[in-house]
Amino acid sequence: MSGILYGVGVGPGDPELLTLKAVRLIQQCPVIAYPAPETGESLARAIAAPHIPDGRLEIVIRTPMVAGNFPANDIYDHYAAEISNHLKQDQDVAVLCEGDPFLFGSFMYIFERLSEHFSIQVVAGVSSLGACASAAGTPLVSRNQILSLIPAPLPPAVLKTHIRSADAVAIMKVGRHLEKVRSVIDELGLTDYAQYVERATMDNQIVSPLNKLGEQAAPYFSMILIRKPEQESL
Amino acid sequence: MSGILYGVGVGPGDPELLTLKAVRLIQQCPVIAYPAPETGESLARAIAAPHIPDGRLEIVIRTPMVAGNFPANDIYDHYAAEISNHLKQDQDVAVLCEGDPFLFGSFMYIFERLSEHFSIQVVAGVSSLGACASAAGTPLVSRNQILSLIPAPLPPAVLKTHIRSADAVAIMKVGRHLEKVRSVIDELGLTDYAQYVERATMDNQIVSPLNKLGEQAAPYFSMILIRKPEQESL
Repeated sequence: MSGILYGVGVGPGDPELLTLKAVRLIQQCPVIAYPAPETGESLARAIAAPHIPDGRLEIVIRTPMVAGNFPANDIYDHYAAEISNHLKQDQDVAVLCEGDPFLFGSFMYIFERLSEHFSIQVVAGVSSLGACASAAGTPLVSRNQILSLIPAPLPPAVLKTHIRSADAVAIMKVGRHLEKVRSVIDELGLTDYAQYVERATMDNQIVSPLNKLGEQAAPYFSMILIRKPEQESL
Repeated sequence: MSGILYGVGVGPGDPELLTLKAVRLIQQCPVIAYPAPETGESLARAIAAPHIPDGRLEIVIRTPMVAGNFPANDIYDHYAAEISNHLKQDQDVAVLCEGDPFLFGSFMYIFERLSEHFSIQVVAGVSSLGACASAAGTPLVSRNQILSLIPAPLPPAVLKTHIRSADAVAIMKVGRHLEKVRSVIDELGLTDYAQYVERATMDNQIVSPLNKLGEQAAPYFSMILIRKPEQESL
């Protein structure tokens, strides 16, 4: 007998956007793991905090970012081993994940290491995509429109091709790529149809039309949504 | 003073995937509206049912489907007017919406009619996208991968172009387009990398690799996920 590994989406930031299922599993599982930066607080834990019972065993997955903003493989090897030790002792483990675990979620790195060895259940969460659209008051797609999710770190030419080909676009992880992304959108004549959203649903959320946004530093958790003019009438 | 209009995502089907915020608003708002087919039960209401207090005023937005599977405009004109009557009387109205309101959600049709006249808050929900990926055990995208959401009713040539250009693809609203979509995927040599998911997170959920799926009728709430072979290693 082994424990069950749960990948639990905790949503975009507002603790009220946790699902009932996430709350139940956070309360039930004897072991709770979550990602955190090399130093400082874990956002995923902060979102779930009101529901974590005292005395739970907690595993802090500290992931220093390496070149390209991806966590180092050996870090995840280490934590996957630690989690598997608990599963082998028949303890269920909930791994918290911001947003949705299978949409650019950090849980994937644990999943790929353990999915062949243990029973895993993934609990979908509210994604930053829906959260940003709600925050911006921008319906993204309806009817037969095509939506593309495009990571901002890609080269300008790739961004341009994919922004051009979809009806609506969400450019994720804008961060230090803000000026590059902004240039591409401008070259395509789409600046007036773009919204910038930072830390959607959190207390310090910022929403701004891209054409009103000054030169500034954008955090990793920022997104630009574009809904092309042809799509303005549903 | 007018009431506030809430667009409330109730998630993909499992009532436990409601958010805490959705539950609170469903319990608080004196008027609750939801879409329903021309005859028969409303899925959105069924998901929220455990939390709807007795004696609430309920507005059933019955939407007969016209050509192309889109609801008729005059239907939404009618219900938007009914909802606005309540808002003008300072009553808050919660409009329930399957999945996420701004991702192919029916709430958009109400939103576009009332957004200039009333205060509207949209509460993001768990989308069918994350739910299908979780059900299929298929991480969709990570790192710098591009994901496209493509409605199945589009013509084969359009489907082909967009399936080819992304790293991962979610083909939504498969329904009666199953065989057309399957042919396109087959021509692209991607059948072995595709998963079919029907009614994700509901009691009658079906998940099948596309290459094992027999000839069958697919419901409107079905999706095909493709994660291309180059993306198998995170």
